Amino acid sequence: MKFICFALSVLFLTGLASTVKAQDYYASQRNNWLAKAENAKPRLNETIKRPTVLVNLIADKASFQGWKAVIATPVDTLYQRSFRKQNGIVVDFGEHVTGYVSFKLATSAGTADAPLRFKLTFGEVPSELATPFDPYSGGLSRAWLQDEVVDVMDVPATVTIARRLAFRYVKIELLGSSQNFDFKMVDISCKAVTSATEKPVELAAATPQQFKDIDRVGLNTLRECMQTVYEDGPKRDRRLWIGDLYLESLANNYSFKSYELTKRCLYLLAGLSGENGYLIGTVFENPEPHPQAGQYLMDYALLYNVALKEYLSATKDEQTANDLWPVAKRQLDIINSYVQANGLMNYEKANKEWWLFFDWKDGLDKQAALQGLAIYTLKQTYELAKALNKETELKEVPSLIKKMSAAGLKNLFNKQTGMFESGTSKQISYASQIWMVIAGVTSKQESQKALLTIRETKNALYPGAPYLYHYYVQALIDAGMNTQAKETVSNYWGGMIQKGADTFWEVYDPNNEFLSPYNFFPVNSYCHAWSCTPVYFIRKYPEIFQTALLNR
Amino acid sequence: MKFICFALSVLFLTGLASTVKAQDYYASQRNNWLAKAENAKPRLNETIKRPTVLVNLIADKASFQGWKAVIATPVDTLYQRSFRKQNGIVVDFGEHVTGYVSFKLATSAGTADAPLRFKLTFGEVPSELATPFDPYSGGLSRAWLQDEVVDVMDVPATVTIARRLAFRYVKIELLGSSQNFDFKMVDISCKAVTSATEKPVELAAATPQQFKDIDRVGLNTLRECMQTVYEDGPKRDRRLWIGDLYLESLANNYSFKSYELTKRCLYLLAGLSGENGYLIGTVFENPEPHPQAGQYLMDYALLYNVALKEYLSATKDEQTANDLWPVAKRQLDIINSYVQANGLMNYEKANKEWWLFFDWKDGLDKQAALQGLAIYTLKQTYELAKALNKETELKEVPSLIKKMSAAGLKNLFNKQTGMFESGTSKQISYASQIWMVIAGVTSKQESQKALLTIRETKNALYPGAPYLYHYYVQALIDAGMNTQAKETVSNYWGGMIQKGADTFWEVYDPNNEFLSPYNFFPVNSYCHAWSCTPVYFIRKYPEIFQTALLNR
Repeated sequence: MKFICFALSVLFLTGLASTVKAQDYYASQRNNWLAKAENAKPRLNETIKRPTVLVNLIADKASFQGWKAVIATPVDTLYQRSFRKQNGIVVDFGEHVTGYVSFKLATSAGTADAPLRFKLTFGEVPSELATPFDPYSGGLSRAWLQDEVVDVMDVPATVTIARRLAFRYVKIELLGSSQNFDFKMVDISCKAVTSATEKPVELAAATPQQFKDIDRVGLNTLRECMQTVYEDGPKRDRRLWIGDLYLESLANNYSFKSYELTKRCLYLLAGLSGENGYLIGTVFENPEPHPQAGQYLMDYALLYNVALKEYLSATKDEQTANDLWPVAKRQLDIINSYVQANGLMNYEKANKEWWLFFDWKDGLDKQAALQGLAIYTLKQTYELAKALNKETELKEVPSLIKKMSAAGLKNLFNKQTGMFESGTSKQISYASQIWMVIAGVTSKQESQKALLTIRETKNALYPGAPYLYHYYVQALIDAGMNTQAKETVSNYWGGMIQKGADTFWEVYDPNNEFLSPYNFFPVNSYCHAWSCTPVYFIRKYPEIFQTALLNR
Repeated sequence: MKFICFALSVLFLTGLASTVKAQDYYASQRNNWLAKAENAKPRLNETIKRPTVLVNLIADKASFQGWKAVIATPVDTLYQRSFRKQNGIVVDFGEHVTGYVSFKLATSAGTADAPLRFKLTFGEVPSELATPFDPYSGGLSRAWLQDEVVDVMDVPATVTIARRLAFRYVKIELLGSSQNFDFKMVDISCKAVTSATEKPVELAAATPQQFKDIDRVGLNTLRECMQTVYEDGPKRDRRLWIGDLYLESLANNYSFKSYELTKRCLYLLAGLSGENGYLIGTVFENPEPHPQAGQYLMDYALLYNVALKEYLSATKDEQTANDLWPVAKRQLDIINSYVQANGLMNYEKANKEWWLFFDWKDGLDKQAALQGLAIYTLKQTYELAKALNKETELKEVPSLIKKMSAAGLKNLFNKQTGMFESGTSKQISYASQIWMVIAGVTSKQESQKALLTIRETKNALYPGAPYLYHYYVQALIDAGMNTQAKETVSNYWGGMIQKGADTFWEVYDPNNEFLSPYNFFPVNSYCHAWSCTPVYFIRKYPEIFQTALLNR
């Protein structure tokens, strides 16, 4: 086995022949990896949750997306009175829950002589319940929106919605009933599910309340996304993406420590990689494990290596790391395929042949970010190799890192401004500074200057989503800018909490609450894995986040 | 046991004391009767049915309710092409089916990365698919309408609609999908259920084709309504009503011969009767057997006795008949409670204290019909008593029949016109003639005159629904008017077939196709038990219906 791996490692780095061999190797391993993924599949922990209050939805320009939920009465007022007189009520579970919703119906007058028809709308945030879904203008499937029409043929009844739901609020409307009887809706509940079981350690008492709050909301976010894979969001898209896996596993390493889940995901992705051995950005568990065919997402494929390295570092599970090492090594061939004689990644070609993500931000030029991420991946994979005593398999990597770093500095760094520029338009963006800083291409001083200067640069493209904000905070810390890192977490994630977040959102632009990559903000996910990473920062860097805030 | 029954039989006929005793007796027997009902519960026979063609719905003033379904292509054209390109298609099962619908979804391009959302609308007749249901104006629950909204979280998938459906046509609309994949809908099927198992004997070859057709549609109607009770309609209300039971069991006696089903229903009604021992017009099986509290429907309670007599006559099952005899005898107390010294039923009081149904016909005065039905019930119950050698328990009945018949003739019969008149307005209706003829109050000659004269009477209230048309045909046969009976079946039920009926309808007024007792014609039932009785007439009276039609 070891011999094969070594033999492959050479072949992987050499054009066509390596692709053929990789195909053979993957074909032989795929079922093993999938079997190991299945073995590591966690049991879901079930908890019954119940709403505690009814709320009124109030239009309010000062509230997030224009709506707030104001506590009206205890939920018992719902259960005790005829439902007919309360048509359209909204119950509040008081927290984000992911699971299976049930309710009971009891006749309160007359005999039920006809079915009842309900519409239940589940919202993670108040605006989802107040914004009409139809006619639907979103770019994603309308079916992601969580409004369910349910016919109940007999009363009394216990009704369970088959679909798993993710929500805090439920609006319940009566669409059909008989005049010959009245009824009550009682005991609404949700069998909440998560594979997170361990209770994370408490933060140091001295931790500022705001960071305690941010940590709590981050843990909630992560817990909700931890199912039988690391999901990106329990409402949408409910599946494993490499980028989300990476960030979730970072946070998990410092909180729930569900390492089996990380292991499962690493194996699942390996088992479902493309025929050429390149990883596919996202995979599905149901009805049986399968990849999103052709979904080659370069930055995510590369980050798999970093996730594997972090997994090994947290668990010392060398068996898994060795087992998956050929996968990590194969991903380096992506870099080899696009790096040019001058040390720069062929951005134009890569952009044509792969999806380069990096952020939800219209018009973002990703040349510099890609260069940075490629260098970072090489470095991290080399660290992984060293931990496994396999650095001899990556003999060419150290020189490649040097060459690519130098090329990045020479071609993308503007010494006069102190900032990186991307693409033919020499675009100035946070993404470019962030990834070149994380790549360690610049000195600490240069990194600080780049990250400080861009804050003063008008029209610089700032991050569009929490995903890139994560790397921003990491870059700030890497550059020794602890205060700014702290401020960013405080302002950005703290900002979501100020606006009512129970879980952190997929998309949050403080300047545009209605921003949606899908052209319809209610279809955004408001509990999204990649937003949970303050948990990681606050717990990994206690000296930064768990000490009193300086006066600013 | 026998002694108790006898003792009760005396008490039943004497006011308050009898009520108290009846309560005791029923309390002791109710669980026995319910247990016997449960024991007689039939297994459902399952058959997989599939649509054969796609149809186009065409607005057409000449078609029933303005819509016709025109065959477009074989159903394979649906299965072979992308569903997306066929959104809104209508499949045709070619016959009325009652059961559980499934379909399969298969990805045809790309990878399913989002749920699908469908709306499926099930129609017994084409107009149900072409008439918007909302905003809903009907008097019954909107939930009876069979439009189901279904979210399918993963593809490929086999989807089964939980609700039992009754339909011939299905319109399928796609409400949500992802642009990243395409799919096909394949293998739509319905697990059709019925408790009718025996194959009725074939009609004599010489039977005119029209009566063969009417018999076939009647059998379909009955078969669809025969579930674990005789339902009134498999789409709506899906439950046991005494009036429907009576007519269905008549047709069953001459066709499927599922006598256990009749027995089950007779016991179920007995077990769920009111505390006073009076039968309740309708009962439910789910979630557990229970009556529609307070639904006292006088004509139906009385017809139970006739149904029991017919059951005994068809089966010779004296054990059941003896067991339920106290129930039948108790129903006679209803008549005793309302018959006045002059021999007339106290219509005003009865109409206040009970629901008197007889027909869906606005403004119908039911005094004469009630008098007729009361007399008929006394006669039939006396026949039942004789068959059980219990006529001594009904000593007062023969004289009561005479007295009430005489009172009917004296007070309600207009000798000059030869017709019965009802109520203070002396209303002329088919219902009055029909029930007084069936009661045998008039001579054959008088009966014929009444039934002939009303046909020539302008503004006479004619029957509103097939239920009363059944009694009309029976009255015609009783009066020896075979040709007219034949014509009525041919014109009325044959008329439905000419308008496209696969099963006979709950409501059919040849002069108003949109008539609905519920203010919205799509909520009418188009497969309704009480319309199936041509099966009974055609098979019981072969000399009338199974011989060549005379030239008319």
